[in-house]
Amino acid sequence: MSSAFSVPVTHVSSRDNALIKDLRRLSQDNTAYRKQGRVWLEGDHLCRAALARGLKPVMAVFSESFWPFAHAEWAQAAIKNIVISDALLPEISGLESPARMGFVLELPTAPPLQANVASVILDRVQDAGNVGSILRSAAAFGFGQIIALKGTAALWSPKVLRAGMGAHFALRLVEGVDPEALAALTVPIVVTSSHHGSFLHQQPIPMPCAWAMGHEGQGVSDDLMARASLKVRIDQPGGEESLNVAAAAAICLYASALV
Amino acid sequence: MSSAFSVPVTHVSSRDNALIKDLRRLSQDNTAYRKQGRVWLEGDHLCRAALARGLKPVMAVFSESFWPFAHAEWAQAAIKNIVISDALLPEISGLESPARMGFVLELPTAPPLQANVASVILDRVQDAGNVGSILRSAAAFGFGQIIALKGTAALWSPKVLRAGMGAHFALRLVEGVDPEALAALTVPIVVTSSHHGSFLHQQPIPMPCAWAMGHEGQGVSDDLMARASLKVRIDQPGGEESLNVAAAAAICLYASALV
Repeated sequence: MSSAFSVPVTHVSSRDNALIKDLRRLSQDNTAYRKQGRVWLEGDHLCRAALARGLKPVMAVFSESFWPFAHAEWAQAAIKNIVISDALLPEISGLESPARMGFVLELPTAPPLQANVASVILDRVQDAGNVGSILRSAAAFGFGQIIALKGTAALWSPKVLRAGMGAHFALRLVEGVDPEALAALTVPIVVTSSHHGSFLHQQPIPMPCAWAMGHEGQGVSDDLMARASLKVRIDQPGGEESLNVAAAAAICLYASALV
Repeated sequence: MSSAFSVPVTHVSSRDNALIKDLRRLSQDNTAYRKQGRVWLEGDHLCRAALARGLKPVMAVFSESFWPFAHAEWAQAAIKNIVISDALLPEISGLESPARMGFVLELPTAPPLQANVASVILDRVQDAGNVGSILRSAAAFGFGQIIALKGTAALWSPKVLRAGMGAHFALRLVEGVDPEALAALTVPIVVTSSHHGSFLHQQPIPMPCAWAMGHEGQGVSDDLMARASLKVRIDQPGGEESLNVAAAAAICLYASALV
């Protein structure tokens, strides 16, 4: 008998099953992962990204109709397999069209702040899509650590996970950080500002550094601004329009990593 | 009597009022603006952006509780003023916390494609947040025309308007374009690809040009790829991670406008 048949399979068809209730919270409540110590990865793209980083899910969840097709690729991926009625899928999904599979993963242990690595500081960035996009840009351009100050969207929430498209698994994610803790950084803090500083395309950026990205409406706090070694702005020859924070982050990370 | 009192004011407190029904559709249905020929700008930021471009709203809508405070700044802004019961606000809002005011604007007449201006082509970009972010970047970096191919998110939908933060009013927006119509462009089409072409940071980009940005999952279509004069990719020293399309657009527009 091959080990291909050794992962236990449980079938669930009741909405009131305790596991379904847990998954519902994980998939629809942005901070449930903190209580449960687990995160929910919905859809095969995210699941593959986790496996590619060598992670072993606590469980894999499949829809009844997908299970026969999932078997070959996925049956050995997790510690156990759960097959649920298709009718229950919307219960455990944060998507308009629920995915036919997902993983439950132990929430990775929160790493301590590392003082000397290229980082991105998120200062109360609110929108899950923006946070996820910044994580992707950070991973792409070699910024290995995300420092999320208190008030930033929960990094492991289902929405940020989805927008991050797997970048979470390539990064050191430090959450709930007090601004005072930034004093420990040995890399210089660089801040973008709409009105102050030299232009990014004319200003060499020290590398490694920690780029600070601020709240969508209010920008970077005065406290964080005061901690910055360098303030730069992105020239906007088209006029006074402002950039989305994730767009600004992409430009800054790209320019400092490559140009 | 000053003209400050000449704009008519109508009070509405019924959910069944025809205007409330129209506004509900405009605020919650992504393509209702095409039927009604009007768009809904929710919140004072968007409203100010429209006024700054010299637009005259068909009507301004205020909550009953905000109206006494709105008077001084806003009473002359539109052709007429509507004051509605606070209880009706959620009916005409696309936000979790409804704004206390908004404008109804005539949908600007669709401009014809202009052949020779710096442009951004959107090829079935789906996410309203991404489209809005790209519009902001385009306006900031002097790309004056957006060419939205069929299948792209509706540009004047309430979600794209919100994400665009006023950039709509600074741009020439051409919607529902057939890919064949791109043959009329005299500016070269430049495409980003994850695997082909030279690196953006080493490749001079002809300006003006038309940058093509593709579908979040599938990228740019083969047809559009074949029309490109130049293919470039964004080097990602951090590894194989992919960028969000609005992040990639920001980098491309910035790099071609400034670096």
